[in-house]
Amino acid sequence: FALAAEVSLGGFAEMGVVGGEVNQLNEDDNANELVDRDGQFHTDVDVDFSLSGETDGGLTFGAEVDLDSTQEGGAFVPSEGGDDSYIYVSGAYGNLSMGDTDGALDFVMKEAIIGGTIDDVNEHAGYNGNSGLDGTYDGQVARYDYSFGAFSFAASAEIDDDSDSADADLFDDFEAAIDDIEDDTVLGVGVRYEGEFGGFGFGAGLGYQQTGDSDVIGLSLDMATAGGITAILNYSDYDNVPLSVGTFDNDSDAETDQIPFNAPINDHIGLALGYEVGAILVAVNYGVYDTTAGDVTGYALTANYDLGGGAELQAGYAHADYDDINDFEDTDNYSFGIRMNF
Amino acid sequence: FALAAEVSLGGFAEMGVVGGEVNQLNEDDNANELVDRDGQFHTDVDVDFSLSGETDGGLTFGAEVDLDSTQEGGAFVPSEGGDDSYIYVSGAYGNLSMGDTDGALDFVMKEAIIGGTIDDVNEHAGYNGNSGLDGTYDGQVARYDYSFGAFSFAASAEIDDDSDSADADLFDDFEAAIDDIEDDTVLGVGVRYEGEFGGFGFGAGLGYQQTGDSDVIGLSLDMATAGGITAILNYSDYDNVPLSVGTFDNDSDAETDQIPFNAPINDHIGLALGYEVGAILVAVNYGVYDTTAGDVTGYALTANYDLGGGAELQAGYAHADYDDINDFEDTDNYSFGIRMNF
Amino acid sequence: FALAAEVSLGGFAEMGVVGGEVNQLNEDDNANELVDRDGQFHTDVDVDFSLSGETDGGLTFGAEVDLDSTQEGGAFVPSEGGDDSYIYVSGAYGNLSMGDTDGALDFVMKEAIIGGTIDDVNEHAGYNGNSGLDGTYDGQVARYDYSFGAFSFAASAEIDDDSDSADADLFDDFEAAIDDIEDDTVLGVGVRYEGEFGGFGFGAGLGYQQTGDSDVIGLSLDMATAGGITAILNYSDYDNVPLSVGTFDNDSDAETDQIPFNAPINDHIGLALGYEVGAILVAVNYGVYDTTAGDVTGYALTANYDLGGGAELQAGYAHADYDDINDFEDTDNYSFGIRMNF
Repeated sequence: FALAAEVSLGGFAEMGVVGGEVNQLNEDDNANELVDRDGQFHTDVDVDFSLSGETDGGLTFGAEVDLDSTQEGGAFVPSEGGDDSYIYVSGAYGNLSMGDTDGALDFVMKEAIIGGTIDDVNEHAGYNGNSGLDGTYDGQVARYDYSFGAFSFAASAEIDDDSDSADADLFDDFEAAIDDIEDDTVLGVGVRYEGEFGGFGFGAGLGYQQTGDSDVIGLSLDMATAGGITAILNYSDYDNVPLSVGTFDNDSDAETDQIPFNAPINDHIGLALGYEVGAILVAVNYGVYDTTAGDVTGYALTANYDLGGGAELQAGYAHADYDDINDFEDTDNYSFGIRMNF
Repeated sequence: FALAAEVSLGGFAEMGVVGGEVNQLNEDDNANELVDRDGQFHTDVDVDFSLSGETDGGLTFGAEVDLDSTQEGGAFVPSEGGDDSYIYVSGAYGNLSMGDTDGALDFVMKEAIIGGTIDDVNEHAGYNGNSGLDGTYDGQVARYDYSFGAFSFAASAEIDDDSDSADADLFDDFEAAIDDIEDDTVLGVGVRYEGEFGGFGFGAGLGYQQTGDSDVIGLSLDMATAGGITAILNYSDYDNVPLSVGTFDNDSDAETDQIPFNAPINDHIGLALGYEVGAILVAVNYGVYDTTAGDVTGYALTANYDLGGGAELQAGYAHADYDDINDFEDTDNYSFGIRMNF
Repeated sequence: FALAAEVSLGGFAEMGVVGGEVNQLNEDDNANELVDRDGQFHTDVDVDFSLSGETDGGLTFGAEVDLDSTQEGGAFVPSEGGDDSYIYVSGAYGNLSMGDTDGALDFVMKEAIIGGTIDDVNEHAGYNGNSGLDGTYDGQVARYDYSFGAFSFAASAEIDDDSDSADADLFDDFEAAIDDIEDDTVLGVGVRYEGEFGGFGFGAGLGYQQTGDSDVIGLSLDMATAGGITAILNYSDYDNVPLSVGTFDNDSDAETDQIPFNAPINDHIGLALGYEVGAILVAVNYGVYDTTAGDVTGYALTANYDLGGGAELQAGYAHADYDDINDFEDTDNYSFGIRMNF
């Protein structure tokens, strides 16, 4: 009675206009300065493969694979950052996922963002995707999660895959082995609750991730009223985890160079509010990283109009404030266009 | 009543033999010389994704995505030149396309080529694909087109996406803004007519593209008789647009190095004639670029035999004459094999 | 009555744990040393496109295209080695394949391996995939094969695709042309027999490949009993074909550097034995390359448990012995996990 294993296709596309401002290296005085990012056409296409099957014993299994194309150039290339596919097995005893999947912290928290924008402009400099310590090593995350009633529990690990002669005698000395795991492995745990009380939905998630002397603890609260109002609150406390802003390529294409900074995060607060009525959604999201070098703050306004059939008009505006760290000035960016889901 | 958004698959494959001659850098005397390109196996595979949907209001929308594999090595890689996907919205008020789509000039002209050949050998050095100024910047073209009866109208733009501090006050000075657009944007317009008169088909297209002090104007005429004869004529006049011939990699693989030339085009003439009877098509296409350095001329002979079901035998022969510019000698190339459409 | 040309999808995924030992360059004393490869998560995903059609005359044609993702990073990228797609035409007069397809030697021999393992750990250093001289040039192989009754015959060629001025007068001198083909082309022939005698299956293959003064001759024998026992024996004799072990990247990521060796092979022996009962398969495979520098030997133990629906649990262990060539020490590696076929 097993279902036939099969491969199905999905994806999305977006086209529109993006523009605004960006901090960029001025090579003459070797400092960042604010330059205009001319309004320009933007397209983005993504094709997804869903592989799925079921064993004779009733376990479901499968993989999700993502081919995507971004940027103004329109080229269709698989992304190169190892952020593309994961594999899962699922049954009565829970779900096991491996690959580019969320760690336990990210799994139990709901991001403080509502609605969509072309080129993700609402993911401003103060936005936190709650990925925590995911990607510390090779991005190959294994997560086990299990739901019972309104509660979900998750545990995750990401292993340092470098050969390491100090690990050669992993099983010789139990204490040393535990130290190795603490130093070399990202471990995460989390719990989530989701309930509904007469049309009022409520969710809460609490997660923790640790490796070596770095750790993150995050709390997420979210609620939705029957009247179309949604609110999400995130708070995360960090130890020995830096916030990196800016990129320095040092190559011939100096257009995108910036003098970056890399400052330890104290904590992060995120807040999102949305209101949906008929085909219209309006939302605002706000976030601030408190770092040892200063605050990195951002907010975005989002408006979506559902055209039906998977298509949606999307407009977004975002503002970011870098507290003048490394001369990063405030930036404003916008986008509008059409998003299509397949 | 909206159609379900969906993703469908298509593609093509070709296998055969290619060979001939190529001009190549001789490092001993630092000049181009003619060398043999041994007869060799050739395969090419392409997979296409068609994403399509319809809004509640009856707009159709979608994207076309192309994964392709070329060259003798048989590797299957997405192309890297940003020539892979475009996105569209289509309705009663016309069609809007963005991404790797034809500019208005290319859209209204019919290329002077008939029939297909393995490895596109009939696209010889004198052939003009009528891409005009498309690809001047990032290849991200936006085109609006609209048809009424036998007429189609198209307008297109491609924006310079480099950050440009001179543009920072784009809206402060209307005159300066117009100058910026002229300098930084490829604009195109075109019109096309297609009619049929008692089994005799006739088409004509006239297009124009401009950026800065460069422009192209092109005229295309085509006709088809009930007896299977097709003829296509192209004429294009260029200002400040170079023809680039040859590549110089300057890397360890000197096999493909040439001393290139880059000469302003005066005009281009293209002509194609074809005759189809039953499963057989024979065709010839000819083209000449008149440049300030000399004429680059080519012609090709094409024979196709339709096997049915999407498969076709294809044979081609092409000759190119470079007027001895940079010691480029005349080349002859051929291919034959089977082409499959899926 | 031709079938509609179509594109269908398949693929596989595997997730599990891999670990063991690897020989690695120690930069302090510039010698290889054995280091631990920590137990780590492993995922691998592959998506396949099958393009197929049929001509009006009843020829079937098509292409097989492979997109795959390997390694711990989880990135989904097409492989770059030209090992991804081939194209075929098939009819009453035999089959013609071109692209990344087996040469005649590989086509007629059955590899000495039974069962599957995560990350292919059972393909140890002594294992021979029987690819012979395939890939000597650009990996673009053309193979013709034809079956009559229990016998199959195959012939294959792979052409040197470098431009070669010595070939310029290929047809001027018949003797020289033959020499060129011998020097520049990999040619292969092979024959295979497969029969069944009262539940006892027997197969035998004999193949030969040659280019210049290099050649390989290979014999393969295999049998399967009604009681679930399978045995495979391979013997190959080599002339002027090296075995390459080890990689030296000389880049910043010294993790994978080794001092390699490259020694002419005298011969190779491969043996595999398997026993299948119900959902369980256990197997062992062994192989040894006798080279002028010493023997490279390996064996592997494989256990599979079929979960149904395309999913299978797989465990493997492999041992390799390099005869201390270049200080390569013996290695042990293992993997276990789940393999899914779609």
